[in-house]
Parts: sequence; C-alpha cells; structure tokens
Amino acid sequence: MFEQLGLIGCGLMGGSFALALKRAGLVKRVVGYSKSPSTTQKALHMGVIDIEAPSALMAVSGSDFVLLAVPVSATEAVLKSIRHIVTADMLLMDVGSTKSDVVAAARRGLRDEVGSFIPAHPIAGREVSGIGHANADLYNNCQVILTPFERSLTKQMRQAQAVWEALGCKVQLMSPQAHDAAYAAVSHFPHLMACALVQNVATQAKGKEYMTLAGSGFRDTTRIAAGDPQMWRDIFLANKTEVLAQSRAFVQHLQQMEQLIENDKSVELEVLLRLAQQSRKQWRMKTNGSTESTDV
Amino acid sequence: MFEQLGLIGCGLMGGSFALALKRAGLVKRVVGYSKSPSTTQKALHMGVIDIEAPSALMAVSGSDFVLLAVPVSATEAVLKSIRHIVTADMLLMDVGSTKSDVVAAARRGLRDEVGSFIPAHPIAGREVSGIGHANADLYNNCQVILTPFERSLTKQMRQAQAVWEALGCKVQLMSPQAHDAAYAAVSHFPHLMACALVQNVATQAKGKEYMTLAGSGFRDTTRIAAGDPQMWRDIFLANKTEVLAQSRAFVQHLQQMEQLIENDKSVELEVLLRLAQQSRKQWRMKTNGSTESTDV
Repeated sequence: MFEQLGLIGCGLMGGSFALALKRAGLVKRVVGYSKSPSTTQKALHMGVIDIEAPSALMAVSGSDFVLLAVPVSATEAVLKSIRHIVTADMLLMDVGSTKSDVVAAARRGLRDEVGSFIPAHPIAGREVSGIGHANADLYNNCQVILTPFERSLTKQMRQAQAVWEALGCKVQLMSPQAHDAAYAAVSHFPHLMACALVQNVATQAKGKEYMTLAGSGFRDTTRIAAGDPQMWRDIFLANKTEVLAQSRAFVQHLQQMEQLIENDKSVELEVLLRLAQQSRKQWRMKTNGSTESTDV
Repeated sequence: MFEQLGLIGCGLMGGSFALALKRAGLVKRVVGYSKSPSTTQKALHMGVIDIEAPSALMAVSGSDFVLLAVPVSATEAVLKSIRHIVTADMLLMDVGSTKSDVVAAARRGLRDEVGSFIPAHPIAGREVSGIGHANADLYNNCQVILTPFERSLTKQMRQAQAVWEALGCKVQLMSPQAHDAAYAAVSHFPHLMACALVQNVATQAKGKEYMTLAGSGFRDTTRIAAGDPQMWRDIFLANKTEVLAQSRAFVQHLQQMEQLIENDKSVELEVLLRLAQQSRKQWRMKTNGSTESTDV
C-alpha cells in the first residue's frame, strides 16, 4: 500500500495505471503532472488524479511511488528535474516500450539514486492515446516485463513485482538488452511493417478506392498503424539497431517468397506457407492487455 | 428461388453459402460433391447438403444453380467435367479470391456456355477452413465483388446480384483485372506479408521465446498467416504480377522508413508515421464478413 503516487504524464498508460491502482486500494492519493495543463485538469475531473501538480518535481514531492508515463525520449530530462528529491526509499518506475535506452537515461538522470528506478514494460496499449481513453481495465491480465540492472535495489524490485501482480498481471524478468531484442521482433518491427503497408496502399494512385474494398485481413494487419506517431518514432529510434535488424531479416524472408512466386515454385511456396500457418496456429497469447483490438 | 443448388466443394465457403441460401429460403434442395467422400458425408450430417453426389457432374445434373467452391487452380478441370450438361438457363458462380485467372479458366473450361458463369468474390473468410466451420452467418453483411465479362449473360448477372443481396450482402461490379489489382494491394500481399513476419520470427534462434512475449500487435498483424496454405499458394500464383508489384512497392516504403531510422531523421519519420496513422484512422471497413477475427 502506497501513501501517494506521483504520476508524471497523464496519458492512456499513466492514467489507466492510476485508475487501476486506486481501484485495487493500493494508493491513498494520486498527485499528477502533465506537460499540458488541460490534460492534468481532465485527469482531475475524471478522478484519475486527486491533486494537480504544477511540475514533475511537485508530483514527486511527498510521494513514495512515482510512475513515469512519458514518451521514452523525455525520460532523462524528467528524471534530472526530480533527482534531488528522489530517495532510496521511493519506488520509481516507467512503462516505456524500450528498455536499454531507458536504463541509460535513468543512469544519467538519477545518478546515485538510480537504484530506486525499476524499468517496466506492461504489454498493454491501444491504438488510441490520451487521458480520455484511460481505463482501469487496461492492464487486466497483462504481461509485464521488468528489466532490473545491477544497480536496482531489492526492495524496489519486490515492490514493483508485487504492485503489478496485485493488478492481476504476470511479471517476467529480463535484461534490458534481451527485452529490446525480443520486442523489436514481435512488437516494434510489426508496427513499422503495418505503417509501411498503410503507406504503400494509401499512396497508390487508386489507393483510396482499394481501401474501400478491404476486408478483415487489411483491418487486422494494419490496426496498430493507427498508434501514436510520436511514441512510435521514439521507440524506433531508441531501439534502432534491433528494429533495423528485424526489418532486414523480414525483407529477406519476403523476398524468398517473392522468388518462389515469380518462378512458380508451387511446392516450395506451399511448404513455407504451411510452416507459417503452423507457427501461427500453435501460438497463443500468454495474457491479454487489450480487449479492444478490433474496434473498427 | 432456385429448385436445386449443385454445390461443388463442401468446405468453409461452399458449406456456409449452402447454409445461408437454405436459411433464406432461396433453394429447395442442395446436392453436394466434394473430392473427399468423408467431407461430403459430414456436409450431409450437418444438413449443409441434402443429397450426396458421387461426382461434380452428378451435382450439376438437375441443378438450376451451381456454386463452385474449390481452390481456384481446380476451376478449369471442374468446369470441363461438367460442360456438356451446362445450359444457358443455369446460373454458375464461383467464390474465388482471384478473378482474371478464374475468367480465363471458365472460358477454356466452359467454351460456348461461359455466359452462364458469373465470377464472384465474397469478401469473407476466416483463418480456419473445412466444412466443420461452415456457418450460415459467414456472409452476413459482407461485400461481394462480381466481375462479369463481355460474354456474361444479363439474366445470370441479375440472378447473381439478387442472390447475394438476398443474403444481406453489398454487391459491387468490377472488371476481373481491376479486382485483382485492388485485392493484391489490400488482401493478397498483406497475407504474404503476415506469413513472412511469422516465418521471420519463428525461424530466429530465440524465436519461440520471443513469441511467448508477444502481445495483441503481433496477434493481429499475423492472424491471417494461419490461413489455408494451399488456397493462398494458388492465390499468389494466380495473381502473381500484381502480388509481386505490391510486395516490391511495399519494400520500398519499408526501406524508406529504415533509412530515416538509421539516419535519425526524427522529423521525417514522424511525418510518415503520422500519414499512416491518419490513413488508417480514417479508414472504416465497409462491411464485415467475418465476426471472429480475433479468436486467439
């Protein structure tokens, strides 16, 4: 049980976390800060936060738990601005989709207090963003990756694990590097791919007409392309090496299939399609952080 | 109202059509043929068909409506085998995903009787196949593309349009070539892309581990990769030129994004991601042929 959550960033992720924490009875009050005052006010009106803070620093003041829910590129600057009131008793956590860069930013931003910071990535999210979509159920039954590093304090690690588990999540520990390699493959590159597909169709001479003819295959392969451009730009740049490696490996697989089609290699093509079918059929999502994946 | 539907191919598409036609009271009896006798028997037990036929020819005999629901590569051979009992009074229709090749196969297979044949592509389907999944609701509210050609008879065109509309579908007319270009962009290539993504992840050294970490983005971008490998092989080969053109254009868009990431072109990258976001957000599926797109 926490006395006060200092919420820095009142968007979909942060707002939903505050709502879930409150509903679970795990926090007495939430003090929130957002770059945009209108967002903070909306969070207050929605009951996501109890008190508006005029700065990140004021949101941290008096908090025993601080959640950073800002674009990953803002991590270092925010942590620097609060460093001098961070203590070894506080739990600091983020919810960013990349982890190596966040750990590096935390080291630079927090220096001696970096042990209080536990990097976290809840596998939840939606193609919409903003406080207006905040929802206490966003993290229900979702998978959460924690990527502690050698400076991480044991007490904070236990607290971080306990709080996600109390919200009904399944916690898994990984190194920041292993996290980034895995999520480049199954999340970051698929997002880039979905955006490239939409661009490819939409920019064709008859693209608009083609899109009116599209069905559920197009709907699902491109759903995530509606995600926040700024957030995803940050993710691609922060996890550049792994994302580019996945993209290039993917293109090789695609071009192998192109070759088989071009040369009428019917048998070999079917073999590859069957392998893909089997892999996909055997796969089941471990947990589900989003219940609204097909709302269009 | 038809006296008898001759159903050639008792799989998901054909079986669902027969069930829908019966439920709508548009046919008195269904005579079905499948290559595999156990499929035909199952269709009989499920009430999809009323009479088993030992051959395609026997399914056509006495029918005023014939539906071909076989892999597109089998179209010509099947039509040849029934040609001598096809008359100018019958309606023949298919449900294949490609149309130029089907029209060419129909011309060769039916010769003088090709005017009875109306090429149709209902934008429905699921990542499962087989008579066991046949469902009278599969075509509910779905879009159907008819691609008549200069030999098509007016009476059959009207009948084909009327029967789909009676099933609650929205009918649109296109040329076979325009159909194939459009569906290469919004259906065939996205399927190839989804298969290449699954293959890329599954064949990596840590691919199996990565897949256990995947969330709803991976789930949706890859859903269609679980589709029937043989059916999709046929589609890729039948619509080769358009599919390859889409694949190559897509790779150019992807590589443009790779370049921006590699060179830290943050502003330009965000512009492209925002264009993709806007195109995808503005898009709405016209009609919905599949209600079970997220069953994993």
